[in-house]
Amino acid sequence: MSKLIRFGVSVDSDLLEKFDFINEKKGYVNRSEAIRDLIREKLVIEEWGQTDKETVGVFSIVYDHHQNELSNVLNSLQHNYLDIIVSSTHIHIDHHNCLEVIILKGKNSKIKEITDKLSAERGIKHGKLIMTSTGTSLQ
Amino acid sequence: MSKLIRFGVSVDSDLLEKFDFINEKKGYVNRSEAIRDLIREKLVIEEWGQTDKETVGVFSIVYDHHQNELSNVLNSLQHNYLDIIVSSTHIHIDHHNCLEVIILKGKNSKIKEITDKLSAERGIKHGKLIMTSTGTSLQ
Amino acid sequence: MSKLIRFGVSVDSDLLEKFDFINEKKGYVNRSEAIRDLIREKLVIEEWGQTDKETVGVFSIVYDHHQNELSNVLNSLQHNYLDIIVSSTHIHIDHHNCLEVIILKGKNSKIKEITDKLSAERGIKHGKLIMTSTGTSLQ
Amino acid sequence: MSKLIRFGVSVDSDLLEKFDFINEKKGYVNRSEAIRDLIREKLVIEEWGQTDKETVGVFSIVYDHHQNELSNVLNSLQHNYLDIIVSSTHIHIDHHNCLEVIILKGKNSKIKEITDKLSAERGIKHGKLIMTSTGTSLQ
Repeated sequence: MSKLIRFGVSVDSDLLEKFDFINEKKGYVNRSEAIRDLIREKLVIEEWGQTDKETVGVFSIVYDHHQNELSNVLNSLQHNYLDIIVSSTHIHIDHHNCLEVIILKGKNSKIKEITDKLSAERGIKHGKLIMTSTGTSLQ
Repeated sequence: MSKLIRFGVSVDSDLLEKFDFINEKKGYVNRSEAIRDLIREKLVIEEWGQTDKETVGVFSIVYDHHQNELSNVLNSLQHNYLDIIVSSTHIHIDHHNCLEVIILKGKNSKIKEITDKLSAERGIKHGKLIMTSTGTSLQ
Repeated sequence: MSKLIRFGVSVDSDLLEKFDFINEKKGYVNRSEAIRDLIREKLVIEEWGQTDKETVGVFSIVYDHHQNELSNVLNSLQHNYLDIIVSSTHIHIDHHNCLEVIILKGKNSKIKEITDKLSAERGIKHGKLIMTSTGTSLQ
Repeated sequence: MSKLIRFGVSVDSDLLEKFDFINEKKGYVNRSEAIRDLIREKLVIEEWGQTDKETVGVFSIVYDHHQNELSNVLNSLQHNYLDIIVSSTHIHIDHHNCLEVIILKGKNSKIKEITDKLSAERGIKHGKLIMTSTGTSLQ
């Protein structure tokens, strides 16, 4: 069974001061909560380093929809990965620019494969993947 | 003058076990060193993006909806920032875990403010913000 | 004075077969009678909601993304109505079919204008609008 | 193999005039396209009348998030139907009102079950289900 364990940490006073400062700004009630969040973040990154772990990714791309055929190409590409794409949300930013946020759930290798292909398309201005987690390994 | 300060941290035993495991693999000699590295990484990220310009952010959080009141708290918090939250998509991952992906458009500083508040809520397992762009400065 | 007018209609044989099947089940004596009923139903729906007030609409369309250029056309059309489209969520149903759910906020008339245009595009299999409410008038 | 079939339809001149008028407003290029859309709409409604056909629904609810516990209740309810809820998009309309649009894919009886339960919750101001289709039966 899981329980709280308390242990001591030594940190340089300068570093600690800056850390406390940003934690206060962010609204953390104590250092333990802030450090637990850092640890969880680290575990998520590790999860993504392992081969073929089931995980969750959020991929965002910005593009100009006037770029020839891009909406069609992106849509067709995504249909080849239906089993891992949960949904995709589109925001019309201005007359030229679109933001598309794609939520993916599946093997990390597969998620990287489709997001690499999407990023490589001509006309994509910015593509960024958030590697998050199914949450099951994070207490 | 800078000196080492020692303080106590409480972490769930399951989480700590996984953290110790990856630290050992990576060759850390003790937890303090590993935690100091996490803190330094965090400060680097915080220093980035201080200027206050109009931008687009995509924020993803993973949480356990059984955590008391969390859905209500998150929803209420977001209603205080209606002017910058475009939409928010919710995926029910499993019986416990939720993924929420929030699309934001507004000043840098305002986006960080709300996402910091959301991340600091107890029960959030993972919160990650990517600042993308409105696309206008990326030709 | 009103009189019967006869004109020709072209319909895909698969679609027509299914239509004939349900008409027979329902007891229609011929296609004309069934089509006249569909037209009357449509007119009733159109007459509803003529006043021009601020409201919220949810519009869903199902289409085959292989239909030539359809993703591009839909995306471009939507960019002309950025001020009333809040977000649009896309689900890849299978290798052919897409579901797109568009959330709109604005004047009644403007919402009907864009959703009419989207529905009339060749290749749209099903388009359906619900007018909901901003909630302020519903206590 | 599927092919276009042409047949004649008789419609009262008054009715036809109104029908042509709204079709022109909507941007239909000819009567056949408008009538094909009416037929497809009819087939979707039929699909929903059959017991336990696999289909797609879009459910939208408007509610006041200050209503006690409502966000939590709605979230928990949805987690009991994870297998049929694809995603859910939340728009913060104003300080009180939320719009939540839930996309569902599964047996129609199951979709009706969860949407009935959600509608019945105290505090829901408006709940409306769009019965759409997976598109496979609509050519």
